Amino acid sequence: MAHVLSGRAETPTQSRILTYVRDEGPLSRMDLAARLGVSRTTVAAEVGRLVELGLAEDGGPAASRGGRRSTLVDLDAGLRFVGIELGATSMRIAVTDGRLGVLARASTPDADIRRGPERVLAEAIELTRKLLAEQGVERPAGLGIGVPGPVDFHAGMPVSPPIMPGWDGYPVRDALSRELGTPVLLDNDVNVMALGEQHTGVARSASAFLFVKIGTGIGCGIVVDRHLYRGADGCAGDIGHIRIEQSGPVCACGNHGCLEAFFGGAALARDASSAARAGRSEILAEMLEADGRLTAAHIGRAIERGDATALQLTRDGGRRVGTVLANLVSFFNPGLIVIGGGVAGLGHTLLAEIRSAIYRQSLPLATGNLPVVLSELGGDAGVVGAARLISDAVYAPGDFRK
Amino acid sequence: MAHVLSGRAETPTQSRILTYVRDEGPLSRMDLAARLGVSRTTVAAEVGRLVELGLAEDGGPAASRGGRRSTLVDLDAGLRFVGIELGATSMRIAVTDGRLGVLARASTPDADIRRGPERVLAEAIELTRKLLAEQGVERPAGLGIGVPGPVDFHAGMPVSPPIMPGWDGYPVRDALSRELGTPVLLDNDVNVMALGEQHTGVARSASAFLFVKIGTGIGCGIVVDRHLYRGADGCAGDIGHIRIEQSGPVCACGNHGCLEAFFGGAALARDASSAARAGRSEILAEMLEADGRLTAAHIGRAIERGDATALQLTRDGGRRVGTVLANLVSFFNPGLIVIGGGVAGLGHTLLAEIRSAIYRQSLPLATGNLPVVLSELGGDAGVVGAARLISDAVYAPGDFRK
Repeated sequence: MAHVLSGRAETPTQSRILTYVRDEGPLSRMDLAARLGVSRTTVAAEVGRLVELGLAEDGGPAASRGGRRSTLVDLDAGLRFVGIELGATSMRIAVTDGRLGVLARASTPDADIRRGPERVLAEAIELTRKLLAEQGVERPAGLGIGVPGPVDFHAGMPVSPPIMPGWDGYPVRDALSRELGTPVLLDNDVNVMALGEQHTGVARSASAFLFVKIGTGIGCGIVVDRHLYRGADGCAGDIGHIRIEQSGPVCACGNHGCLEAFFGGAALARDASSAARAGRSEILAEMLEADGRLTAAHIGRAIERGDATALQLTRDGGRRVGTVLANLVSFFNPGLIVIGGGVAGLGHTLLAEIRSAIYRQSLPLATGNLPVVLSELGGDAGVVGAARLISDAVYAPGDFRK
Repeated sequence: MAHVLSGRAETPTQSRILTYVRDEGPLSRMDLAARLGVSRTTVAAEVGRLVELGLAEDGGPAASRGGRRSTLVDLDAGLRFVGIELGATSMRIAVTDGRLGVLARASTPDADIRRGPERVLAEAIELTRKLLAEQGVERPAGLGIGVPGPVDFHAGMPVSPPIMPGWDGYPVRDALSRELGTPVLLDNDVNVMALGEQHTGVARSASAFLFVKIGTGIGCGIVVDRHLYRGADGCAGDIGHIRIEQSGPVCACGNHGCLEAFFGGAALARDASSAARAGRSEILAEMLEADGRLTAAHIGRAIERGDATALQLTRDGGRRVGTVLANLVSFFNPGLIVIGGGVAGLGHTLLAEIRSAIYRQSLPLATGNLPVVLSELGGDAGVVGAARLISDAVYAPGDFRK
């Protein structure tokens, strides 16, 4: 089924109708009128306009509640969003429906962000076009994309991203929008993952929470009052460079003692490899011999096999992350902390250390009701969150890039 | 001039009119219609209702812009708010007009929060009544109050406040409201000081900023998108208990190594007194001998007289505060940091250390445009902020205690 170009919401009332239906499913006109505090005539007029814009459609009769029958309002069945998550060595793409349910996924086995924006984006565009063609989508309503580095959200481009050579100041948003003929928004990977968790993950009911990604590096998405908080310069959540010791390993940022220099995928690989080479772990040495390098996944398997060094590395790292988070809990008093990213695959060994440090070092008032949990969405958090990012814009009136 | 009871705003449009005029002064009906995106007829109707409610009045003709003459809308000239700031050993009260300009102040020389809520509040009520009577105010439109400890904002009462024995769970908001017959809101001192700086201080144009109070203890008010962020349990900003060293002095909270155990008024008095007793500073010893105790003000005077120990204590403290703030800058990326509270009287010696630690330890992107400044309001920040807190509620529709 070919889908014609969708418009964007034109009024706050239209925006609220679309958002309610996206987040809760089809709602009756009667329900919507009550929730919005407007007349059924107003709802009918706004829904009529949304149908013309290709955003909403009639969802059939609502279950009777004894009074006048009402009709359900649903999102247009042909509405499609695209979510893209670029990692240091990964590319994931998903096509979703209007409620951000994933209809199809694609990924590349050997992505490398260091190949630069032209080549990486050309590949992303090709893969997206292929996926849309398979799904019979002529033009999606919008596309969201997350990248592993700081982003100037308003300009739609990366800003001095440490692990993305060649991407500094590249107009990612506008280039993709021009090529694919659809509205595009760009954000960093942690922010889109936080949005994904908010949309379908563990953070659904949390109004203020932190999403902590422990991947190659460490970063944090901050949600305040259900909205992403990006900070005055768009770099809020950069917790990988919080200094935890005055001395310590040199960090990629040039400082000493940053959290990321002690823990995260890159530091863990470094420490596990030196333990293997120094003869401190037979299991890790065997894995290094076999695969030529060590990753968080190796550490996880070594822990399962009872390796004491792998266990210790994980515990030390978890304690350090937990100590930083304990301070942020005192400052920010979040209602929930979600741990995700590749290193989160170390699972409950890591989680137990992080929790223990937080609960030991923060005040009881802030930790009394504070769940610290692993991400539920795993690999889909980024693409669903990227689709959510652009859907928020398409479902709202005004200039969405502000 | 006796003032009759004011009502509260009933609609979002009324609320926006009142807030614009409070923050910018009298505005023409034409201006208001343009800003609110509504017709002049709607503005006229809403202003008419605000006049009936005793909240607004005719402000005379607007300066002509060549077209039809418009009339200015002003706040009711008889509108009065009360702001109260209770400190550990201080009580400040102010009566303001509708735009929160301070009309009259009162304070007590020998307040002591440890005397418990009945005696302290009775004194506050008596002083407030006296001040209102002097100003000819029969009943103020509302009263805001800040206290030096954690507050359950929704319940309107302190929660386990460490330096306020007897106040835990005491219904401060409702008791004051009943006695004075006016809407009351209670918050902690740092939050109301942040609001004060936002209203008339250095933070007027900052959308996201931190107000750091260094008094007897250390705390932080967090403003996000121009609104106070209180956290999931209302205890956001509790940075005095961020742990900066694994060992270190025992803190009032029972943990070791908290920021507040190293610095703040109480720690500074302790360290200065032991330096004086240990013979490390003749000047401090002389002051201790003369006054029987040492405070931040003594340290300030000792610095002016060239005392090396006093200077060192201030620098060590500033560096520690700065190190904690550097981490919060990486996490929160504020647009401004304001330093206030009694110890901030140490002024530029303290400020220079704090700035230096922040600029050295945070990433350039987050500190490139980050002013770190001393509070401009000084003693008025708390009372103006408390008045602002209740004015926000009076100028908004709905249940203001939610």
